[in-house]
Amino acid sequence: MDASDQSAAQQCAAAKAAAPALARASRELKDAALMELAESLERRSAEILAANALDLAAGEEAGLSDALLDRLRLDRSRISAIADGAREVARLDDPVGELLEERELDNGLHLQVLRAALGVVAVVYEARPNVTIDAAGLCIKSGNACVLRGSATAERTNAVLASVARDAVVAAGLPAAAVTLVGGGREQLAELATQKGIVDLIIPRGGEGLKAALEAVATVPVLYAASGNCHVYVDRSADLADAVAIAVNSKVQRPGVCNAAETLLVHRDVAASFIPLVARELLAAGVELRVDEAVRGFAGPELAGQLVDAVEADWETEFLDLIMAVRVVDSLEQAIEHIALYGSGHSEAIVTADEAAADEFRHGVDAACIYVNASTRFTDGAVFGMGSEIGISTQKLHARGPIGLRELCTIKYVVTGDGHVRA
Amino acid sequence: MDASDQSAAQQCAAAKAAAPALARASRELKDAALMELAESLERRSAEILAANALDLAAGEEAGLSDALLDRLRLDRSRISAIADGAREVARLDDPVGELLEERELDNGLHLQVLRAALGVVAVVYEARPNVTIDAAGLCIKSGNACVLRGSATAERTNAVLASVARDAVVAAGLPAAAVTLVGGGREQLAELATQKGIVDLIIPRGGEGLKAALEAVATVPVLYAASGNCHVYVDRSADLADAVAIAVNSKVQRPGVCNAAETLLVHRDVAASFIPLVARELLAAGVELRVDEAVRGFAGPELAGQLVDAVEADWETEFLDLIMAVRVVDSLEQAIEHIALYGSGHSEAIVTADEAAADEFRHGVDAACIYVNASTRFTDGAVFGMGSEIGISTQKLHARGPIGLRELCTIKYVVTGDGHVRA
Repeated sequence: MDASDQSAAQQCAAAKAAAPALARASRELKDAALMELAESLERRSAEILAANALDLAAGEEAGLSDALLDRLRLDRSRISAIADGAREVARLDDPVGELLEERELDNGLHLQVLRAALGVVAVVYEARPNVTIDAAGLCIKSGNACVLRGSATAERTNAVLASVARDAVVAAGLPAAAVTLVGGGREQLAELATQKGIVDLIIPRGGEGLKAALEAVATVPVLYAASGNCHVYVDRSADLADAVAIAVNSKVQRPGVCNAAETLLVHRDVAASFIPLVARELLAAGVELRVDEAVRGFAGPELAGQLVDAVEADWETEFLDLIMAVRVVDSLEQAIEHIALYGSGHSEAIVTADEAAADEFRHGVDAACIYVNASTRFTDGAVFGMGSEIGISTQKLHARGPIGLRELCTIKYVVTGDGHVRA
Repeated sequence: MDASDQSAAQQCAAAKAAAPALARASRELKDAALMELAESLERRSAEILAANALDLAAGEEAGLSDALLDRLRLDRSRISAIADGAREVARLDDPVGELLEERELDNGLHLQVLRAALGVVAVVYEARPNVTIDAAGLCIKSGNACVLRGSATAERTNAVLASVARDAVVAAGLPAAAVTLVGGGREQLAELATQKGIVDLIIPRGGEGLKAALEAVATVPVLYAASGNCHVYVDRSADLADAVAIAVNSKVQRPGVCNAAETLLVHRDVAASFIPLVARELLAAGVELRVDEAVRGFAGPELAGQLVDAVEADWETEFLDLIMAVRVVDSLEQAIEHIALYGSGHSEAIVTADEAAADEFRHGVDAACIYVNASTRFTDGAVFGMGSEIGISTQKLHARGPIGLRELCTIKYVVTGDGHVRA
């Protein structure tokens, strides 16, 4: 039970042995585990906070930034929010066993396509200890054993949280190894990432460094939660008041997340009226604007002193900050080309009153989420009605967009005959 | 246009440039290309056969085996069959743009989930030149540009076939680079497999050597068409006549394919009556039986001389030949454990009259296709009503089971608002 007694490979093998019981667990059993998890998080909050205080003290001593310490910090209200998240997952439909297709084949065979658990899902994450519970909850509900590998800085907090989750699954009659926490070292990461045939999927939640570390070693399939270089394109026919609101919301409402917009593209025909309007609003919201020459011209002399000249790298950058690149384009086609060249395939918005332009954008832009007359900030599993998610995927295979319960599953063809043989 | 003028990387870039036109092509356009492809294969069969004769002559000179030469050989009836395959794909529903989900979100946003083309799909294959057309046809219909890399031994045949396909897409008004043939060398394979961001998916159709070569170098996502170590389990309640028919059909009907069974598992309670029956039939069909001690005992002295003792490796081997391993198990659970340990997750069958046992097997076996009272040989896209396929996947992510048109696609979330911003 104690992570330190076993290698990561041994722990993964134990998770694999636990996987069939999870894959076949009823909805009632899984929801009971989730509700018990929520209750005991609140019941054991003193124990959790004591461990968290030790991690915080060690982090302060090690000189962690205030931002990192804040991510690491739990309090009673944060614990309640985590517990509510588990209750929310319990309320979601069970994806396992969902009948996706059913038909009688010409030869009389009965074919069903059923959703099925993947098996063992590993989640690798950084400072935030809430991910320990969020990831465990989604894996339990999707019928997967999970292997969790958090940050060394949250080691004590994660150990208590994982033990709460483990106790909850055991209380529901499921095997303890269904929730397995491995150590936070680089060696353990490499060991985890190479358990091909044991671990079915690894999902990293973290920055580019973590992704690069995984890409270098992983033999297990990896589902990358995405970075987002998202655009708002204001078409010649746009309602300019809507366009201002959408551009400002996409950038400012929460600039540090992947579905915030980084670049604003403006059709030349509306640039003269739109750019001064939007620039004033964005500047007032504290946004640094990195603009091309045309934008500078349209902004006029009054604003010119507050604008920064964009360089090539600005079009490629996910600022995750109150910085926005702005460019004038000559056409919808040029906007689509710009997005194809620089976008990361996450969330792309057009503001337009022209249905033909909207359709051109919907079909011509290759991204997980396309918005017409709405902010890019809506890309989110809960907002989309998919429940909690473990991140947003920009890859095209397996899962594109929010990674929720269904995306943690595979399928199975079940074919029933009556002594059928092939002629 | 001539492959030899460009590097594989340059050819892939051209395919990527062609991809948006394919992704947006109407069903009518794509079907017109497929019908023209079928017609011109037949119209240009003399040209195809002349190129094929040169490949065959070179192959004979190089000492290729009769089996390989047969795979390489085309004649008018094989060309007609390939053309009919293209016509068949034209008749299949267009997967692109298929509406998978649609709902109004709480905030009033309208959300659609649409199936969308992947972009550029590469198919890497060995001797059979028909794959050039089969793969091109499936990629055209699924709205993907394709990059084809066949065997050097079929170089001249593939060049003519690819030019027929290219001419057909051009005649339909699509870009020529939608069908791109790269050279058959190892270097080109490595170049192709590392075009991350350009090529969206590589599908190898070939033996383990090809897979290993790809695994070593690929940065592009790979969808492995599977090897199949498939089992037939005869339960204590099985109808023994059905069980004999299913075991024989699963092994004998076409032993060289991935959905043929390799191991027969027999419940101890029916072993005394079943094993002599099935052994006689299998031996009569020319199957070598590799058996455990219990099977030898149940077979009786009359058959003993015709049985071979199984070794551990036999349980792991995809024989692809008239060889079958046979084992007695004490229970359904032991059969499921055996399959979990040795199976490749392809196609697994139970013969039983007990619905509870059938259900236990359906849910307890982790494989792409589960059969109850039917032969494993039915695993096939066309049989499953999915149309043509490019192989069978045993991986759990993205596509499991037959890889047909839908599996060559991704999805896209399309969200339409009315000036919506996030609160």
